[in-house]
Order: sequence, then structure tokens, then C-alpha cells
Amino acid sequence: MTDLEKMGKQAKAASAVLAELSEERKACALRASADRLEQDTDIILEENRKDLEHAKEKGMSEGMIDRLALSGARIRAMADGIRQVAGLENPLGEIISESLRPNGLLIREKRVPFGVIGIIYESRPNVTADAFSLCFKTGNAVILRGGSDAIHSNLAIAASIRRALAETECPEDSIQLLEDTSRETAAAMMKLKDSIDVLIPRGGAGLIRTVVSNSTIPVIETGTGNCHVYVDDRADVDMAVSIVENAKCQRLGTCNTCESLVVHRAIAETALPRIAEALERHGIEMRGDERAKKICPQMTPASEEDWGKEYLDRIISVKIVDSLAEAITHINRYNTKHSESIVTEDPAHAEQFLSRIDASAVYVNASTRFTDGFEFGFGAEIGISTQKLHARGPMGLKALTTTKFMIYGNGQIRS
Amino acid sequence: MTDLEKMGKQAKAASAVLAELSEERKACALRASADRLEQDTDIILEENRKDLEHAKEKGMSEGMIDRLALSGARIRAMADGIRQVAGLENPLGEIISESLRPNGLLIREKRVPFGVIGIIYESRPNVTADAFSLCFKTGNAVILRGGSDAIHSNLAIAASIRRALAETECPEDSIQLLEDTSRETAAAMMKLKDSIDVLIPRGGAGLIRTVVSNSTIPVIETGTGNCHVYVDDRADVDMAVSIVENAKCQRLGTCNTCESLVVHRAIAETALPRIAEALERHGIEMRGDERAKKICPQMTPASEEDWGKEYLDRIISVKIVDSLAEAITHINRYNTKHSESIVTEDPAHAEQFLSRIDASAVYVNASTRFTDGFEFGFGAEIGISTQKLHARGPMGLKALTTTKFMIYGNGQIRS
Repeated sequence: MTDLEKMGKQAKAASAVLAELSEERKACALRASADRLEQDTDIILEENRKDLEHAKEKGMSEGMIDRLALSGARIRAMADGIRQVAGLENPLGEIISESLRPNGLLIREKRVPFGVIGIIYESRPNVTADAFSLCFKTGNAVILRGGSDAIHSNLAIAASIRRALAETECPEDSIQLLEDTSRETAAAMMKLKDSIDVLIPRGGAGLIRTVVSNSTIPVIETGTGNCHVYVDDRADVDMAVSIVENAKCQRLGTCNTCESLVVHRAIAETALPRIAEALERHGIEMRGDERAKKICPQMTPASEEDWGKEYLDRIISVKIVDSLAEAITHINRYNTKHSESIVTEDPAHAEQFLSRIDASAVYVNASTRFTDGFEFGFGAEIGISTQKLHARGPMGLKALTTTKFMIYGNGQIRS
Repeated sequence: MTDLEKMGKQAKAASAVLAELSEERKACALRASADRLEQDTDIILEENRKDLEHAKEKGMSEGMIDRLALSGARIRAMADGIRQVAGLENPLGEIISESLRPNGLLIREKRVPFGVIGIIYESRPNVTADAFSLCFKTGNAVILRGGSDAIHSNLAIAASIRRALAETECPEDSIQLLEDTSRETAAAMMKLKDSIDVLIPRGGAGLIRTVVSNSTIPVIETGTGNCHVYVDDRADVDMAVSIVENAKCQRLGTCNTCESLVVHRAIAETALPRIAEALERHGIEMRGDERAKKICPQMTPASEEDWGKEYLDRIISVKIVDSLAEAITHINRYNTKHSESIVTEDPAHAEQFLSRIDASAVYVNASTRFTDGFEFGFGAEIGISTQKLHARGPMGLKALTTTKFMIYGNGQIRS
């Protein structure tokens, strides 16, 4: 048995215990984990320094180093996050449907834990604590595979949580973290179908693609976002300027950031210069098609490749369309099924956009930046699903559960 | 562009039209398809004869030939199945949740079609009509890949349905069937991620495994069933005999058929001989462990391999356990997460079994044979999911839909 298979067996065993823990016991263990993380701040920071030194030696970018770096405040935020999850209402145990069949069978569909969840993620060490708390709350054991850049930090966080679990007499194997961050081991994890019930990759498009292509475990795809704002001919121009500015500039590196602006030609001459002015104040480069460039000659020309690009940077593509229908076709062709918004005062246009755009979240007159578990009122988020199976859009606790039919008979046989 | 990519594009285009068809239009097209199939009986039977001749030349088993064979009555049953689906209540459009956020955003979660569904199946030609009707009803276009054994029958059925769609002014490409039944084309279909939103394999364990290993499209696993009946020490023996007999013998080749019997040692001497007598009347071979053989010496010895086997044949494995806990551990180790049943008069034992067994359907005092969309009152069934994502157990219309967040604002931006 490989180490990984052993981890799988241990996770299954932990999940059987976890599934029967009371809400009180779980909340108590979560709070103990939060306290323990704060108490272990010095140890965790020391391990984090090893990762940071290594990152600097490797010449990692400042942005990436910032994502990797921990501090007392960041560890406190992590702990507070766990405490918040401890206090959330739990969807587990919900009776989703119940029916008494003519033959007397009582069929009850109940919400239950998955069992074991696998999470493969990249640099940010806070995901270790986050993902654990959400999985634990929903009665699932978790096997984590973080990036090699954050391995010391991740191991320290996981060790700290395991100590807290032991202290509260909960199975330590509710959280296990792969020490070996090689690609081979990650690939083997993606085939651990007997032990892992669902696999959630969190990270860039490359990571997601690798997991989707290689996993035999059911995957929930998350996160890549080529999001559009469409400024309709019936848009309020002031509102359009404000929404595009917010959707593009409020944070550059998130999956719900607007990467492409689509403008109806009838409003382009009025709206585009004003939008350009707002974006330029933030130093955003605009890559426009020919018609857009005619209105704003300062734009750089957009190539076919730009339409499908998630820049995560100070760049936006700009396309002029002749109609709402063309806007819908263009967006459905190039989007990643994440978040799309129309700015319009025409309710019929809004309804057409809402019904025809193929995406997890479709907005009328609002910024795409709202696609987020907290903004949606879920109180937590394990990621944003861009696929259509099981969960779509921001995933809260419910997305980490499955269902089971429990059937009560008194001797029924099928004729 | 390959033929397959072209089919994908056509399916996407059809799905956009389908998503906006009224219930009346869809019901009318479904009824026209049913009528057309009946009118085309002679053509379909002629094409079916080609498949049957080919099957006989190949030396296909009688059972398989029976699954392949059509008749006037079977075509009528197919048509009636479509008419029934036409009359079902549609889950589409359901508002699953709605919330008004403090910032004034109205967030509505609505049930919508997937878009394009891919179905890969084996010999039975009725799946062609069945799968089409369920996908069409839920606003989805379908790309079908049937087995080469049934290709002439499948093409005739699909052509007949396409005629009916054209006659009722619905997109013909709502149903497309791959003429090319090569493995290469099936493999290419499993990678058609841009056009197919979800892939459902229907068939034996080998087919399911191939799809799960090769698909980059999200898959709903269906169908393999190594189902157990556990006879508890607190069982009513008469009931146990009747349930085991029904679960094993009522139909041998279905996925919810019982393949393994687990008996508590305290009741084995009383129950086992009576169960053996009932099963022997049906010519069932029993493969027992040592303790079972001591009670019923006529059993053949079971090997380790038997515990994990879905026989789909006149064979059952028999295991004696010392406790309910051992029964649960044994079943969770070897089952395929399909259907499991306990026979017991003790409510505490029943609840333990229900909560600890990891399967889509867990029964108390009833035959496993009830795991079926019609028996559960869904009015239809596209398959039985044995995975935990999206849908678990019998899948009715709802399993063929996804959700979409539609968000109404009046200029909200994120701060």
C-alpha cells in the first residue's frame, strides 16, 4: 500500500466517525482549531519564513510572495474564518423529499456528507484552514494537496489543526495534507477513486485543466472567469461607466473580474469615451476591435485571441456589436460560463440576456464582482463552480454534501 | 472541423432554440415523435432485422439477441414511453431560491436545461427513444452514441424522430446519433467539452470505466450494482426469505438485483437453510464462506473475488458475520454504492444501517429491486446514479437540469 492509499483509508475511517459527530462536537473542535492556530502563531510564522526565503531565492514575483506571506493578523483572520464556519447553520440532515408510495414504502431523501473530499490548490496557505473548516463542518474528511511553494506553511497549519482535533477527541485524519508535492503524487491522488468521493481543484486555468483531464474521481471545476459586461443600446450611461469601472478595477486578480467589454454600436460613441476615461484613470490598457478603435484611437488593436483571454491584469478587450443577439452569441462563444452582466433600462432586453446567456451567474445592472459566497449570503465559500453538475456558481456548505435515499418497508417485494 | 465537432455545434444551436420552446410545443413534438415511430414500424423492423442477422452471424448469445430485437409491440411500448414523458410535470423554470440582499440585489436561482447531453450506451435500441424524450422534455439537445450491434435500428429510430421534429417545426438536431460507432470516435466524443455539458454512460461496468477514465466532460456514473441483503439477528425469518428470494430472483440482469447475502451468525442456522431452499427452487448457485458452508454443505466455496462481483447471473455469494458492525464494514468495502437492504425488527439496528451504509439507496425490510425511477414515483428514469455528485440513485427529469443564478440590480457596485 502506498502512502497515498494509506491516507485514503485513514480518511475513509475518519469520515465514518465524522458523519456521526453532533453539531456541538464539531463546533467545539472547530473553535479549538481556531484557538490552536492563534496559539501556534510563532511556529507557523517560522515555517512560513522558510517558504518565503525559498520563494525569494526562486525569484517569485512580488504579487505571488504577498499571497504566500503570513502574519499575525493573517493567522487571526484564518482563525476567525474557522469560528465563523463553526457558527453557520448546517444543511446536513435536511429531508429533501419524502413520499409514501402506494405499496407502503416510505422513501426519504436526506442530505448527508460526501465522505472524503480531495482539494488540490496553489500557493495561498489560508486555503488549508478554510477548506478544512468547510469540509469538517459538513462531516467530510479532507485530503489536501497544496503547492510546493507553501509546503512548510501548509504542514504547520495542518499539524496545528490535527493537534486541536486530538485534544477535542475528534479524528485527526479529518485533515491530511500531502507532504510530497510532486506531480506524480498529485496525479496518483486524482485516481484514488476508492477513497476520495469528489475532487475540487482551486487555482489557475492550467491546474483546473490538468485535474479535469486526469481525474477519474468526479471533479467540481472552479474558478476561471472570462467575464463580460455588455452595455446595451438602452443602457444608462452613468451606470454603465460605474459598473464597468468596478467590474474591471475593483480587484484585478479575481475570477469574477470583468475581462471584456461589449458595447452596442448605437451607444458606443456616447458611452465608450466615458468608460475609457474611467479605465484609463486606473491605468487599464484597452484592446479594441476596429470600430472601437475608431471611437477611441488610443486603444491597442484586439486580436482574435483577446476575446477568450482571462487577463487577471490591467487589460480589457472591447468589442462593438450591432445587436443584443450578437452580444449574446459573442459572449456565449468566448465566456467561461462564470459571470456576465448587461447594463440596460429595457426589461425585455434584460430578460433575453438572462435567459440566453450560458453562465453560472447572469446580472442585470450590477457588477460581476458580486459572484461570491459571502456576497450571496452563504456565509462561506469553497470556490465558484463553472460547470453545470451538482453546484453552479458560488459554493457554500450545501455544495459539500450529497444525498441518500433511505427507504422504510415492512416486507415489500417487487412483483 | 470534424463531423463530431460539427454535430457539437449543431447540438448547441438546437439547444438554444429548445431552451425557449414552450411546454405545449415540446409536448406536441414528443407526441408527434411517438406517432411517427408507430407509423414507421415497418422501416424500423426492417433495419432491426439487419442488426439481428449480423448478431446471429457473430454468434451473439440468446439473451443479448433478445435485448436487441424489436417487434411491433416493442415499438408501441417505446412510443407509449415517449407519450408518458410528454405528460410529466416539468421541473424546468422552478425558482429554487430567492433572496434580496442588503444592497438591494435580488438573487434568484432558477432551474434551467443543461444545454447538450451526451449519452453513450450499449445494445438496447429503445434507449435511443427513451433518452431523447427525457432530454427533449428538459430542454436539452442530445448526442447519442449507441453500440455498433444496434446501429441500423438506432439510425432508423433517430431518423423517424427527426422527421417528427421537422414536421412540428422543432430543431431536428435536438437528437443526433453517431453513425460511426468506432472506439476512436467514442473517445473523441468524450473530449468534446466545448459542446457537450454532461455525459451519461449507460451499460456494463467496462463501458462506465472507459468513460470515467477518458472523459474530460463531467460524467454521471450509472448502473453497476453489487447489492447486498443483510439478514440481522433480529430479522423476521419469513420476511428475510421472501426479500432475499425477490431481490435475487425476480430479475437476474438488473443493477438493483441482490448479488450477495450477509447473515448474522445468531440467526444463520435458522434462516440460511430456508433461504437456500427458496433460492435453489430458482436454480441459484450459492457461494458461501466456511461458516455458511457448514450450515448448508451444498454451497460452493466463495473466494475473495466473489465478494466484489456483480454476477448478473444465477449465483449469489453468502457471508456470515458476527455483528451488525461487521456487516456494515463488509458491505461498505465491497459494494458499488447502489442499493443495500437490512432485514430486522430492531429499529436501532435499522437506523444504524441506514446511516452508516454508503449507498444511493438503503432499505429497511424491503427488496433492493425497488431502486428505480418509476417505483420511486418519478414517472421516468434516465439511469441510476452510483456517484455522489449532482444526482444520486434513480434519476428522473430533475437530474437532467442544472441551475443558474439570475441577479437583478439597479447599478450596484462592490466596495
